[in-house]
Amino acid sequence: MNGLRVMPEETLLPPGSTIGILGGGQLGRMLTMAAARLGFNCHIYAPHGDNPAFAIAGTATAADYDDETALAAFAGSVDVATYEFENVPLATAEFVHEKTPLLPLPNALEVSQHRANEKAFFRDIGVRTADWIFDEDVDIVALHAGEDLNRGTSRGIIKTCRMGYDGKGQVRVSSEKELRKAWQEMPGELIFEWEVPFSREISVIGARTSDGSIKCFDIAENTHEFGILRSSSVPAQIRSATASRAREIAARVLAELDYVGVLAIEMFVVETDSGEQLLVNEFAPRVHNSGHWTEAACATSQFEQHIRAIAGWPLGNPARHSDVEMTNLLGNEVDNWNSHAAQSNSVLHIYGKNQSLPGRKMGHVTHLKALSNR
Amino acid sequence: MNGLRVMPEETLLPPGSTIGILGGGQLGRMLTMAAARLGFNCHIYAPHGDNPAFAIAGTATAADYDDETALAAFAGSVDVATYEFENVPLATAEFVHEKTPLLPLPNALEVSQHRANEKAFFRDIGVRTADWIFDEDVDIVALHAGEDLNRGTSRGIIKTCRMGYDGKGQVRVSSEKELRKAWQEMPGELIFEWEVPFSREISVIGARTSDGSIKCFDIAENTHEFGILRSSSVPAQIRSATASRAREIAARVLAELDYVGVLAIEMFVVETDSGEQLLVNEFAPRVHNSGHWTEAACATSQFEQHIRAIAGWPLGNPARHSDVEMTNLLGNEVDNWNSHAAQSNSVLHIYGKNQSLPGRKMGHVTHLKALSNR
Repeated sequence: MNGLRVMPEETLLPPGSTIGILGGGQLGRMLTMAAARLGFNCHIYAPHGDNPAFAIAGTATAADYDDETALAAFAGSVDVATYEFENVPLATAEFVHEKTPLLPLPNALEVSQHRANEKAFFRDIGVRTADWIFDEDVDIVALHAGEDLNRGTSRGIIKTCRMGYDGKGQVRVSSEKELRKAWQEMPGELIFEWEVPFSREISVIGARTSDGSIKCFDIAENTHEFGILRSSSVPAQIRSATASRAREIAARVLAELDYVGVLAIEMFVVETDSGEQLLVNEFAPRVHNSGHWTEAACATSQFEQHIRAIAGWPLGNPARHSDVEMTNLLGNEVDNWNSHAAQSNSVLHIYGKNQSLPGRKMGHVTHLKALSNR
Repeated sequence: MNGLRVMPEETLLPPGSTIGILGGGQLGRMLTMAAARLGFNCHIYAPHGDNPAFAIAGTATAADYDDETALAAFAGSVDVATYEFENVPLATAEFVHEKTPLLPLPNALEVSQHRANEKAFFRDIGVRTADWIFDEDVDIVALHAGEDLNRGTSRGIIKTCRMGYDGKGQVRVSSEKELRKAWQEMPGELIFEWEVPFSREISVIGARTSDGSIKCFDIAENTHEFGILRSSSVPAQIRSATASRAREIAARVLAELDYVGVLAIEMFVVETDSGEQLLVNEFAPRVHNSGHWTEAACATSQFEQHIRAIAGWPLGNPARHSDVEMTNLLGNEVDNWNSHAAQSNSVLHIYGKNQSLPGRKMGHVTHLKALSNR
């Protein structure tokens, strides 16, 4: 963990200040819009490419994450910096943080960028996850897992420790033979996890300020297809006690990381004889796809909440005015924009990406269930 | 009136297209954000100055409204053009419209830019207004109005026919002497109106598509201070029959202008022995300050509704999820942003203007009355 370096608690960044964002995707774009509504300017820093955030940011820098000249100029031009994806190189975040406050603190990246670090973090703060084995020697992994796999009572997932997203870098294995084969073929450090027989996947989007105030949005229930988020429904169909526990877990993670900003935690709900059990999957130190519905259904969106937190402002009200279902528009599904635009209880959001690729997140549509039709 | 020139009805402008906006103020800024959420790019055209829309538009041109070279380049770079304030010179709008579709059609500007034209338009379509006299000869005006004024039973208002906004270019008169004095001192063409003894001021924000579909937001009740909008409350405290008549008037105006886009109509409510009577004050051929609350309280904001209409999309649902009160932050009132940011049921919007001047619209805050507090 890095030493703490936060803005003084009495510092509220005034409108007219500039917020730097590392990363130029749709999350950066939506953060920029939320910041603009509060009177902030944004400076986006991202490598060359199809960066939808560039089109609406007041300032944009297209440069690599190891370009120290460009990074220094970026850091010098902003009042506070943040990041919109969790695979910003840690060295980049730390370099920027030496020159200007970077929130959330780089330690959140350090933990979340390595699955074994993340699992150990959860274990150390008393948050349950799937069982896991982290060892570079496949024989050790096979020693602990092979017999159970071969018995066919449970399955495992081998995941790359770094740079996994949207289901990439994951292979499901049902036997010791499959385990050894996948281990040989997959690149980099690997972690073995027991597959969780979950009934539901949920996520908590929570925010914390530097003075320790925490607010969570209502819990979303998520479905995935091919490892990519397909939809989020709110409220999740879970018991209220389970929802309370999920919020408590989120609050513990936020506090233990001394986190400032919005963070998303994905959890599995497992039905057991003693009720619903929660196993945490992973967290993302940023605004999250499963919180996009907040823009359509809350007074304060997750994007504004993040900007408020890193600017030292009080958190906004996360209350929700409608039940919702948010559906991602992946790849050429966005070509059906006109049918979504014609749905009177739907809020359509398209990211302005130049190129549609299979599975690429091109937009989303939020169906508001409670709104009356006119 | 100009000849009709609209996009073919079957033309839905796809995401990725570019929308040109004449005018760079906060209305242009909010239109740009709404357009971006639908995947459109925006090109703002405005004279040099403190243009808050420039900061978030993909492309911006700072040039005068009579710079035909710059206007032609602007028109050539956009798929459809619109305007965000009603004092864009008619010649500018017509020049652009010759090169690319401009919506709303320039005729709406032509009518609204001259108070006598506007009053005659209302009269011709059977919409009641205050009584008025338009004559360049003050003796004629005094002949019709002087006696009543001197009797002290009613007052009049002399208004410049062109370029009035936020109460500028208006003088209230209580005698023939005051009338003659004001007439001599005020510049340009003038119109005399009888002051209306209204109980409330309301406005209807309505939208129309090129195929004639019309939707209105719920009616706002407005208060003004020194001629500048102070607050808008929704719903307006009027009878439902009055609200229906107000919507009917808005629909008639939209249809008679063959209007495409969002239009605002201000009306006076007068209590009479036979109930509430409506007298129309004026219309603005654009999104309007009294509709800013729609961004915080509706699935579709007035800004998105305008973009949808000019892009040939179906109109969105204007339903409202909460009672609201929107308050303008004028001049240095915006310095209290931190107290507004701390109100948990308020949505704060700051326009990012560089300079605060007395009475200048710097932002607004929308209080959501129905949202529960968390």
